[in-house]
Amino acid sequence: MKFEILTTDSRTRARRGRLHLAHGVVETPVFMPVGTQATVKAMTPDQLRSLSVEILLCNSYHLMLRPGHESVARLGGLHHFMGWDRPILTDSGGYQVFSLSELRHISEDGVRFQCHLDGSTHFLSPEGAVDIQKALGSDIMMALDDCLAFPADHAAALVSMKRSMAWADRCHAHFQKVATDSQALFGIVQGGVYPDLRQQSAEHLVNRGFPGYAIGGLAVGEPNAQMYEVIERVEPYLPEDRPRYLMGVGTPADLVECVALGVDMFDCVMPTRHARNGSLFTRDGHIAIKNARFKDDPGPIDDSCSCPVCKTYSRAYLRHLFMANEILSSVLNTMHNLHFYLDTMQRIRQFIEFHRYDELLADVRRRRSSALEE
Amino acid sequence: MKFEILTTDSRTRARRGRLHLAHGVVETPVFMPVGTQATVKAMTPDQLRSLSVEILLCNSYHLMLRPGHESVARLGGLHHFMGWDRPILTDSGGYQVFSLSELRHISEDGVRFQCHLDGSTHFLSPEGAVDIQKALGSDIMMALDDCLAFPADHAAALVSMKRSMAWADRCHAHFQKVATDSQALFGIVQGGVYPDLRQQSAEHLVNRGFPGYAIGGLAVGEPNAQMYEVIERVEPYLPEDRPRYLMGVGTPADLVECVALGVDMFDCVMPTRHARNGSLFTRDGHIAIKNARFKDDPGPIDDSCSCPVCKTYSRAYLRHLFMANEILSSVLNTMHNLHFYLDTMQRIRQFIEFHRYDELLADVRRRRSSALEE
Repeated sequence: MKFEILTTDSRTRARRGRLHLAHGVVETPVFMPVGTQATVKAMTPDQLRSLSVEILLCNSYHLMLRPGHESVARLGGLHHFMGWDRPILTDSGGYQVFSLSELRHISEDGVRFQCHLDGSTHFLSPEGAVDIQKALGSDIMMALDDCLAFPADHAAALVSMKRSMAWADRCHAHFQKVATDSQALFGIVQGGVYPDLRQQSAEHLVNRGFPGYAIGGLAVGEPNAQMYEVIERVEPYLPEDRPRYLMGVGTPADLVECVALGVDMFDCVMPTRHARNGSLFTRDGHIAIKNARFKDDPGPIDDSCSCPVCKTYSRAYLRHLFMANEILSSVLNTMHNLHFYLDTMQRIRQFIEFHRYDELLADVRRRRSSALEE
Repeated sequence: MKFEILTTDSRTRARRGRLHLAHGVVETPVFMPVGTQATVKAMTPDQLRSLSVEILLCNSYHLMLRPGHESVARLGGLHHFMGWDRPILTDSGGYQVFSLSELRHISEDGVRFQCHLDGSTHFLSPEGAVDIQKALGSDIMMALDDCLAFPADHAAALVSMKRSMAWADRCHAHFQKVATDSQALFGIVQGGVYPDLRQQSAEHLVNRGFPGYAIGGLAVGEPNAQMYEVIERVEPYLPEDRPRYLMGVGTPADLVECVALGVDMFDCVMPTRHARNGSLFTRDGHIAIKNARFKDDPGPIDDSCSCPVCKTYSRAYLRHLFMANEILSSVLNTMHNLHFYLDTMQRIRQFIEFHRYDELLADVRRRRSSALEE
């Protein structure tokens, strides 16, 4: 893995970079659509390519349980399995163990949990998380971390962060033993909303040395302003020449704000999940397509959008598909929302290249506040 | 509308033809995928075009109720509404009134029924069926007919056929008044399983004069052999120079058999519905993709299939998507099954062109009987 910084914005911390991975090149800042179960819900790989998706995120938790990472490995790895030849990032499985599984028991060794599908018992250790992601064959794998509930007091956040750092060390050590050149392991900064803990965590990881750093444990219920503050405070402790990945974030406005704070990579289920619920993004906020006022509306979702959905279909047709519970509703809505996110990233990259990122930031803030006033 | 017969098979009644419609040319024999609610379930129009789909069937019953044919007309007609620029055939709505609606009351005037969605009351007359299909703007519209339950005795079949013929006359008369050049109205032969009634019905319609003739009221529960016999008996009463459309049929083997009896057009929900249920067509019968034996199967659905799904995905992946209830399961399965049907039609057309249709027929019968023996 190689990461280049192509240019840096003059007035913000925004960076325009390029990530060279085993399965291709990724222009940063980048948004990674989520392909939980080895598919971005409702999208074919062809459709993702036509939307210029460069990298996907897949969830190790789901894949280890079904169809099983060993099965995926026997079938030629995740890329071949799902027909996606561009880069893939996998998470460690930790987050879903904490959010989805029943009856989990954490020890220093790892976490024992019951599968949400059939109640079977599994154990996930730092070494196991690396092995699973090695079997999947992702371009970027993530260290196993302990996921803190929100809110958490300083003492709980300290214990959790320390455990995450110990696990990161073990992932790092195991990765050195088993890794091939085609995969990279990222560390994850934890520490809740506490700047001192975030600093300790970042310094610990940087001292260990990872090719990329994620900021985890955000967008878990804290106010937006607090999330931005944590990023702003932790960023100076991350090396400039390594990509920074903000996990699980966020709204289009969040992306623009967090790029200004120095973030290079994002993933979020928001565009795809909202799409299936009929919530469609526009430059002036999102619309609920089931709204009766769209029943006879011949216009596109967003006049200024150049996606294949806006070029062909009316709000009236999209409302009809949603009301009729048609599969095509999820397909077209997902295509539009993903295009909206990818187009936002494209604009982000262009504004950085022109050293005018503050203009984009000001525009997004203005639209956000006028949308809030409505 | 214009219909040409390009060639006729030497040893069977199979015909190779070409149908010129307002929105394009259709090579016959043709299979029309069903797009009930102004979408072929799980397919984008782009995907249908890439599968070489030339004509779709849409259901007037569903569209008159939701979003409403007047709404579709205001939005530019069905083609524009659903982003499909090739030909569309609409049915009259009659079949669904009989199969889906609650509390229907038939009179000579038409049929009063309660909508299956919200219980609202509607009335469908022969003239209304023409008006609805005119509003939708389909290339081919169908006359309203009375749909007989199976089994029905001769007396009941006679009454029903007579009513269908009276309705066909009224559709024909109303169509002359309101029609534009861009639409054609087909008549539907009824009469249950009774050859004398079928003959009367065909003669009545041909005497009235339609540009195409459908055979309705089959594949409603009668044995296959009986269906073939009815077609064989009615075919001589249909003019050679007009297309014959067998409604709602059938399996791939049915298509091959019925083309040999002189049928030019088919529609059926089987490929799309089976796809969503995980039942996939192969040359040697269909497979249930959820079967555990496919869990680690790296092979395609069908070795001899050239569809984009078989070229890219393993049975193991398709099984995974189905078990995980992923939308992509319906998308890929539908793509394969539709390709299978369209490829069957392509082979049918080629065998007719080479005057060797009996070879295809023999091959399909051999595979069918060996599949039954398994």
